[in-house]
Amino acid sequence: MNLDEKFQYMATGQPYNDLDPLLIQERQRSTLLTNQINREDDEDKKAVLVRDLFGSAGTEPVVSPNFRCEFGRNIHVGDNFYANYDCVILDGAKVTIGDYVLFGPKVGLYTSNHLFDAKERQIGGCIAKPITIGNRCWLAANVTVLPGVTIGNDVIIGAGSVVTHDIPDNVIAAGNPCHVIRAITDADKTGFAGQDLM
Amino acid sequence: MNLDEKFQYMATGQPYNDLDPLLIQERQRSTLLTNQINREDDEDKKAVLVRDLFGSAGTEPVVSPNFRCEFGRNIHVGDNFYANYDCVILDGAKVTIGDYVLFGPKVGLYTSNHLFDAKERQIGGCIAKPITIGNRCWLAANVTVLPGVTIGNDVIIGAGSVVTHDIPDNVIAAGNPCHVIRAITDADKTGFAGQDLM
Amino acid sequence: MNLDEKFQYMATGQPYNDLDPLLIQERQRSTLLTNQINREDDEDKKAVLVRDLFGSAGTEPVVSPNFRCEFGRNIHVGDNFYANYDCVILDGAKVTIGDYVLFGPKVGLYTSNHLFDAKERQIGGCIAKPITIGNRCWLAANVTVLPGVTIGNDVIIGAGSVVTHDIPDNVIAAGNPCHVIRAITDADKTGFAGQDLM
Repeated sequence: MNLDEKFQYMATGQPYNDLDPLLIQERQRSTLLTNQINREDDEDKKAVLVRDLFGSAGTEPVVSPNFRCEFGRNIHVGDNFYANYDCVILDGAKVTIGDYVLFGPKVGLYTSNHLFDAKERQIGGCIAKPITIGNRCWLAANVTVLPGVTIGNDVIIGAGSVVTHDIPDNVIAAGNPCHVIRAITDADKTGFAGQDLM
Repeated sequence: MNLDEKFQYMATGQPYNDLDPLLIQERQRSTLLTNQINREDDEDKKAVLVRDLFGSAGTEPVVSPNFRCEFGRNIHVGDNFYANYDCVILDGAKVTIGDYVLFGPKVGLYTSNHLFDAKERQIGGCIAKPITIGNRCWLAANVTVLPGVTIGNDVIIGAGSVVTHDIPDNVIAAGNPCHVIRAITDADKTGFAGQDLM
Repeated sequence: MNLDEKFQYMATGQPYNDLDPLLIQERQRSTLLTNQINREDDEDKKAVLVRDLFGSAGTEPVVSPNFRCEFGRNIHVGDNFYANYDCVILDGAKVTIGDYVLFGPKVGLYTSNHLFDAKERQIGGCIAKPITIGNRCWLAANVTVLPGVTIGNDVIIGAGSVVTHDIPDNVIAAGNPCHVIRAITDADKTGFAGQDLM
């Protein structure tokens, strides 16, 4: 298999070999490229490198140092993606992030599990499941999202949460494991219209 | 508004615009200055840079790499502040830290919330509330402190806690959300008097 | 006391002085050496530095950037140790890690506690207890392990867990605080035999 075929195989959700030399080489490429991104102080040069790293990106993706990912090619972000300091995305499977999504510092998205059987894990066995995040979501600091999770639109995930299951649209959810706290309603509007400080 | 006026406005606790160009520029300054601090191997040169970054600092502030903050100017630390590896402080509002405070690795203090309404959040709406930490506190590894929280004197926050509410003096508190476990008493004294190993 | 004697004293589990100049110097050495490791893009050169840092290491230890530790000399890893991005090990006491152990991103192992009495803590009082992790364990992303914990063989610790007590062989454990979820059984086998993708 060539690299594209490997990723297609991994996308089927079947166990794959994490120790495959081509995958190790791709991870090494991602480490070197994120090293370069994290060391780059010029925002314009950095944006070019981020577009090279990601599978696709909308307008103005911002990734603060130190950003890390497993491959990069399986990460697809919409417009105005913002990742604060020290975020990590392991993208063995596809990671789809909508428009105007905000990550606080230390957010981690993890699409891959090592296999649960120790012998199978020892020889490199992994399974990857996609992660999907809707539009206008805010994942607060130190949120962890596990393989296979879908988060709806307009969702807030509280700081330090571990998201193990899907989260519907338009709610605040928090905790380890993360659970829905309440719906977001018109009572949450503050009247802010972008006017201040500009 | 000039930058000082903006920070005064943010300190009122009213919604402000996170996307304000002067704030973005200040964040960029903080990223570049912490890049410099994190790359600096000489402790004396580093201390000069940390004093330039923080609003104020007592004797011998130590911040281990990679330290990050949003602005720096709103961070005020007392004497002998020690931050272990990979701590983050987002200081949209004032962060006041007493004397002899110890942060374990990966501690995060976050004074700002994005607004809960998705449309208001999308156009940059944020609210900041101050965080205050008393004297002689120890925040263990991977503790997260949320906007508006006050932690008293002589407090220990257990590793991995998410501090959502105020914590009184002289207790051990832990968990997500963090709650008081017990008071610290004379039974916690070990007889250690600084003599060993010196 | 010379440095070896200091570490022998710390290994007795008695309170020791964290502010000892020789310990501060050793920590500084560890910061500089991990700076060098984290900046090194060449895997072969990096492996030499990792062997210099650790007390002992089996075949092919991999530590992804940014790895951090307190001293390094008290860390002993078996064959095929793999630490993903941003792991931290504070090794005031001995850290023993078996063969084929996998750490997800942001895993933290912490052998030292500051003393609970504020005055004793202020003058540098600490106590260290060893951490032991068996063979073929997987600690998922953002797991925190506290002083004195022993984790058995073939264990999986779920993402975001805080491990406060010992964990027996061959279980999945998760949560804050971490508790056993279930045993791992033959039903967890997928039939993976390493054949795929190679």
